[in-house]
Amino acid sequence: MTQSLPELQIGVLGAGTVGSQVIRILSEQAEDFAARAGARMSVSSILVRDLGAERDEAIDRDLLTTDPDEAILGKDIVVELIGGIEPARTLVLSALDKGISVVTGNKALLAAHGPELYSAAAASGADLYYEAAVAGAVPVVYGLRESLAGDRITKVVGIVNGTTNFILDAMATRGLGYAEALAQAQELGFAEADPSADVEGLDAAAKCAILASLAFHTRVGIDDVDVEGITRITPADMSEAAYFNRAIKLLAIAERRIGEDGVEGVAMRVHPALVPVDSPLASVDGAFNAIVVEGEYAGRLMFYGQGAGGAPTASAVLSDLVAAAHHRVYGGHAPRESVYAHLPILDPGTTRTRYQIRMAVEDRLGVLSDVAGIFARHGVSIQSVHQRDDEVPGTCIIVATTHLAREADLKAVVKALAHSEAVREVTSAIRVEEE
Amino acid sequence: MTQSLPELQIGVLGAGTVGSQVIRILSEQAEDFAARAGARMSVSSILVRDLGAERDEAIDRDLLTTDPDEAILGKDIVVELIGGIEPARTLVLSALDKGISVVTGNKALLAAHGPELYSAAAASGADLYYEAAVAGAVPVVYGLRESLAGDRITKVVGIVNGTTNFILDAMATRGLGYAEALAQAQELGFAEADPSADVEGLDAAAKCAILASLAFHTRVGIDDVDVEGITRITPADMSEAAYFNRAIKLLAIAERRIGEDGVEGVAMRVHPALVPVDSPLASVDGAFNAIVVEGEYAGRLMFYGQGAGGAPTASAVLSDLVAAAHHRVYGGHAPRESVYAHLPILDPGTTRTRYQIRMAVEDRLGVLSDVAGIFARHGVSIQSVHQRDDEVPGTCIIVATTHLAREADLKAVVKALAHSEAVREVTSAIRVEEE
Repeated sequence: MTQSLPELQIGVLGAGTVGSQVIRILSEQAEDFAARAGARMSVSSILVRDLGAERDEAIDRDLLTTDPDEAILGKDIVVELIGGIEPARTLVLSALDKGISVVTGNKALLAAHGPELYSAAAASGADLYYEAAVAGAVPVVYGLRESLAGDRITKVVGIVNGTTNFILDAMATRGLGYAEALAQAQELGFAEADPSADVEGLDAAAKCAILASLAFHTRVGIDDVDVEGITRITPADMSEAAYFNRAIKLLAIAERRIGEDGVEGVAMRVHPALVPVDSPLASVDGAFNAIVVEGEYAGRLMFYGQGAGGAPTASAVLSDLVAAAHHRVYGGHAPRESVYAHLPILDPGTTRTRYQIRMAVEDRLGVLSDVAGIFARHGVSIQSVHQRDDEVPGTCIIVATTHLAREADLKAVVKALAHSEAVREVTSAIRVEEE
Repeated sequence: MTQSLPELQIGVLGAGTVGSQVIRILSEQAEDFAARAGARMSVSSILVRDLGAERDEAIDRDLLTTDPDEAILGKDIVVELIGGIEPARTLVLSALDKGISVVTGNKALLAAHGPELYSAAAASGADLYYEAAVAGAVPVVYGLRESLAGDRITKVVGIVNGTTNFILDAMATRGLGYAEALAQAQELGFAEADPSADVEGLDAAAKCAILASLAFHTRVGIDDVDVEGITRITPADMSEAAYFNRAIKLLAIAERRIGEDGVEGVAMRVHPALVPVDSPLASVDGAFNAIVVEGEYAGRLMFYGQGAGGAPTASAVLSDLVAAAHHRVYGGHAPRESVYAHLPILDPGTTRTRYQIRMAVEDRLGVLSDVAGIFARHGVSIQSVHQRDDEVPGTCIIVATTHLAREADLKAVVKALAHSEAVREVTSAIRVEEE
């Protein structure tokens, strides 16, 4: 039945873990894919840097090339799995300019050059798909771009970086310090040799920008995201969190709200946050990702699944390939860039959040009153205060949790506390998210 | 900018809770929808039974009609929210035959007449969308039909009926009996006056069939689903479940597996099941739905959100409307029926499950051996047995949990126990799912 179907030529750029899986699965399940896409998908060129390197046995060495033109020209769809900005950007644009549809998993490229790619795709009538760029196999790009197109999204909160989730987990469950947990993540392949993009929150920020642009129909970039990584989280923070029945997670948060000038806008932030242990996000472990989407009509939805790894990422790439192939055969096209709402980006200082601030103070009568006065002077209301003796004689520990307040005022409180005579040291200041 | 867009005529069949919300949101957010769909969507007729009935103020009474032709002819898209088989089937077919795309939330119609509707849509080039038919706002139809098209789905397990979930919750958390919990659900609008479709598991079975046909690319109907409702669950079952750290949930399970004849097939079942309290499904409360999808490459994914209610269901309908409108303007079409895999339906008796069986037995030496002998004679292996005194003197309670065994053998065990002299009564037999 599928013998008479048209054949589409696929070029694959990059034959690492994900690329090899994509090629393997496409060949092993060829009949299934042909039936679903309405076309046979034939991988006819694979762009690599090193022709002689060892490869997965699923890869036909005759298809390997180091010449980008060979991997792109004459193809119907190109799969970009090189990662990074260049040469990925040039190659993707070159394909799109020629009307060749592109499936990519490159979040850095999307977050930095999304509009340029989208406009090249629209100009030539090609499709641009990138499900694998956010949360691996979890179909949240599809969700926001298509399946929730009938709703008005108000907030997206996600755990979208497996590396930091693994590290925070290891610190929480096995009492490791940050450096130890990072080293273990690197050993097990959950963190890169240079982990900075992950641990500094930049990877999560790129994904946050991609999700926000889809959710709010507004063009945003990674620089619009207020970012704080996990490098300052300590074992003491973990014990404190556990004591208050909370877990610490690196959250990517994008929301639509009315700014201080009364105009609706978008605010995006990535930071570690204390979440209740019985919340759905608290139980997202290790390499899993979860994204909570709040729609004005749908209410709260959650998408959950494996956020990384060869097979899950390949699953996302292959689904995009089926969609792009379907359009080649039956007409229609992928959604174009949707930025009609043109919402302004709100000043992150005006975001209303809650902080849990831990500090070492002099053990003397009246110190709590001094500390509370600092909060009050900045217009920040305290929800709860816990005071206990420290191991250091003459010192006591105060843990203060605020009500919702302006981010700028909260930061000012932390600064004022650090400079106050009553406070010996502010040992941590972590945001609290009740979701 | 959106002034020059084409205008699409929408007919709405049924102006109940969901229909009213759809009409209200379409009008309130007209600019947004125009920008997303690439067309203005104008509701130009609303089919109702009673022109004089009270209506949501969002509904323009001039658009009301009792004439189906007026609501369908000349429309670009028809939204069917009447429910039930007839007249919904005739009206939907009449629209599809004329090339008018249909968006419906009618699971009973889909499960009973899906192939007929699909083939009418394919013949005329119309779209058939039905996200709202399963799990309200949760985009799992989209997920299985499109976003996971690159994977090979092996299993779908869901909590897809809010009524039974509410009743089971009320029994578990407030110690209510089944009848009391049902009465409360009816009072609060979570159960219909005639609750049988929900409590007997038929609503969940229809959704199970819809999900299975999408997941396994095979035509299945509601009659292929092995169904057991929740009407026999007792407060004693709930205490027993809590004692073993389990919750009781009505699960819809569809899986692809190798049958006893060595041929791969599909098995579907709906039944109450004991799940570990710390599993994601155990924490799905009240009117929420959750669907776990296992893909060969994606691994385990979960979709979670509100499964019913006017606004969440409207959200799903509106997303389908945007997709159908987009195709009218830009070409392309919704996925057609995908049944290329043609997998056989496996005999439910060959499914391998686990049972927890509770029985009242004579309080005498050797009774456990007699009971265990019955399991052994049917080839069913026991994983654990708990024995305790009953309130009735001379009686003791045995709770036996089996290892995985053939469903037919497990049923034979229950029957043999009920007829055995040692057993006074088998008080419950509930499947155990570890997920």
